[in-house]
Amino acid sequence: MEYNKSFKDIGLSPIVEISEKAKEIAPEFEKRTKKPFIYFQRGEVGFDTPLFISENINKAISNGMTKYPKSGGEYYLKDAIINMLHEDGIEEITRENIVITHGGQEGLQLVFNLFEGATVASFFPIWSCMLENILPYSKNSKLISIPFKEEGGKFKIDFRGLDEILENCDILYLNNPNNPTGKVFNLYELKTINDLCLKHNVKIVSDEAYKDIVFDGENLISSLSLYGDHIISVFTFSKTFAATGFRIGYVVSRDKNLIEKLIRGDYTQTAGVPSFIQYAFSEGIKDINKRTSWIKNMSSVLQERRDIIFKELHPIFKDDLIKPEGGFCFFLNLNKFSDKVGDTEEKIMNTFMKNGIAVVPGSSFGNPKSDKYIRVSYSALNTELVTEGVKRIKEILS
Amino acid sequence: MEYNKSFKDIGLSPIVEISEKAKEIAPEFEKRTKKPFIYFQRGEVGFDTPLFISENINKAISNGMTKYPKSGGEYYLKDAIINMLHEDGIEEITRENIVITHGGQEGLQLVFNLFEGATVASFFPIWSCMLENILPYSKNSKLISIPFKEEGGKFKIDFRGLDEILENCDILYLNNPNNPTGKVFNLYELKTINDLCLKHNVKIVSDEAYKDIVFDGENLISSLSLYGDHIISVFTFSKTFAATGFRIGYVVSRDKNLIEKLIRGDYTQTAGVPSFIQYAFSEGIKDINKRTSWIKNMSSVLQERRDIIFKELHPIFKDDLIKPEGGFCFFLNLNKFSDKVGDTEEKIMNTFMKNGIAVVPGSSFGNPKSDKYIRVSYSALNTELVTEGVKRIKEILS
Repeated sequence: MEYNKSFKDIGLSPIVEISEKAKEIAPEFEKRTKKPFIYFQRGEVGFDTPLFISENINKAISNGMTKYPKSGGEYYLKDAIINMLHEDGIEEITRENIVITHGGQEGLQLVFNLFEGATVASFFPIWSCMLENILPYSKNSKLISIPFKEEGGKFKIDFRGLDEILENCDILYLNNPNNPTGKVFNLYELKTINDLCLKHNVKIVSDEAYKDIVFDGENLISSLSLYGDHIISVFTFSKTFAATGFRIGYVVSRDKNLIEKLIRGDYTQTAGVPSFIQYAFSEGIKDINKRTSWIKNMSSVLQERRDIIFKELHPIFKDDLIKPEGGFCFFLNLNKFSDKVGDTEEKIMNTFMKNGIAVVPGSSFGNPKSDKYIRVSYSALNTELVTEGVKRIKEILS
Repeated sequence: MEYNKSFKDIGLSPIVEISEKAKEIAPEFEKRTKKPFIYFQRGEVGFDTPLFISENINKAISNGMTKYPKSGGEYYLKDAIINMLHEDGIEEITRENIVITHGGQEGLQLVFNLFEGATVASFFPIWSCMLENILPYSKNSKLISIPFKEEGGKFKIDFRGLDEILENCDILYLNNPNNPTGKVFNLYELKTINDLCLKHNVKIVSDEAYKDIVFDGENLISSLSLYGDHIISVFTFSKTFAATGFRIGYVVSRDKNLIEKLIRGDYTQTAGVPSFIQYAFSEGIKDINKRTSWIKNMSSVLQERRDIIFKELHPIFKDDLIKPEGGFCFFLNLNKFSDKVGDTEEKIMNTFMKNGIAVVPGSSFGNPKSDKYIRVSYSALNTELVTEGVKRIKEILS
């Protein structure tokens, strides 16, 4: 009996592999050099999950929330989410427009599985897990790449050709803020994209995992604030609350029929997210003061780290260095540093590892192997380690 | 764009629908009759999750187990499971033979999805969720039914014809102890089934969700104690520890390649079960004394309830009443009570509801609608309510 193609085509995360390798060689490096190994590869917020969320878990369990959860999500969490969306000016969302999922990951997996085999277009670079797991698992094998263009110190959308691409696809995947580039889509970009998707009857899957990590006083414009039933926004609490291990997220769409299908899919796969976890997050997000001050504080810490890296690297990268507007990664273009880092991706990775730095190569995000990019994530390290790490990158490149 | 057929064919649980209806009419019934409404439909153990499990959740969170879990499951839980299997004489299971899943449900869903489109044979009646959700979700549309035969007060296997059935299928689904009949497969049955499956190269998916609820001093013989890489056993902590809401289970097979595929599938779908939940159960099952005394106590309480029902109903059912050997349900044959309960399934359901009793009709478990069976679950009600409920059933049937 043959295995389902879905399972044959998926890999394990390249980031996990790099992490394993880093853990293996770090002790020897640290012993030899007396310097710390720098884990710039991790996509996980290095804070503890705030108490105003986690302390509710115990309360919920003590109150007996240990039986089957409600299919599609508990009403108390859905109501808290509706109010939170309302704060951002997103109206007319009801309980029937929301499904609670095991992180943004299950949200995306369910949506793409619902459209199994569809032709998907995506801006590139693209989150590695989409490439390695979610799209192959759903047999979305015809992936059309729309590369960002680098212009004036920004990642921009090349609108030429977009009309034609969208004419030939079913779904546009949009990750905003974007991992790995840190690009945040502006209103003009979102509106233009939406107009083209409406014109060509294309669904928008808007992955807004990093919604609360936006810098310089800006706020994310959610795709949900655009017009249309064809928009499916996928969220998670993982990044906002440094809570990757709680596995909780949600999908919102004005298309209730679609949400109903996702609820059935989620029920079939897992019977839902534990109620005590749903309760903890509903209580946490209802406390607007604690929530907003947590988010503000976390974003400012991450912005500080971003600024350290930008300040240190700008003199050598010049206009090639693109400052992330959100998220927690730099996507560094090393094309002009081939003589320092090596002329293949493998050599580049070795150069960094040898110097006690783990990063993720651009090809993990769909870049051609010949194109020399690396992702540097500053989410898990404190200021001191970020400073040490960027100093070391500078030495390599100088 | 068409939805994936997987999502079109799945329903919501008929038991959930019955529960909703019961909740709706119960207040009126209780007000009118001053008697309690009897929820005989629920498939959930009505105890609190034991403290020796749940108290570890808080400890794990306080210790920072709030980041991404390890793909496929944490080693501490896998090791605890290996030791527990060892107690039952199941040897040579390593970490690579186990994947931790969101309940038995995700375990089954992943296995059947791995064999998408396979021809599945199953003993009938069959767990409703297999019928409504898991098999259609995996496009296993060619389901071959193998009805139990009722003989000498037992549900037995009709071995005539089994050879031919297995020749024409890919997977045999076996639920032991069986929901809804309470049948526990004996060693002779398991060995004969296994020999036939080996002969015809058929995988066995052995759903052992009720493994720790076996009566009269007997123990379950796990399919894992049989010979072969073709055996895939699916377990959950939901029933054993009255912990349906924690969504944690595990799949064990000697086929490491298959487990590796399931790990990738689980990672893609949800990124895994929260580590703090895995930790809580690993600590709980490592405490052999507390665990065995909990299981002994729970089983004896459930056995007591079973005995009350059997004793009350036997005088009117006679040899048609089959005593469950495990699990927590009677599957009652009402064929000879048509004049009392009605001659269609709909009428039967109405009769019970009108008398303040919710049960699940046989067709939810794949029985023909014309065949008048009901499932009576005694898992969620205390002795007093079980006694009241069975008294009322007796009145209806007399």
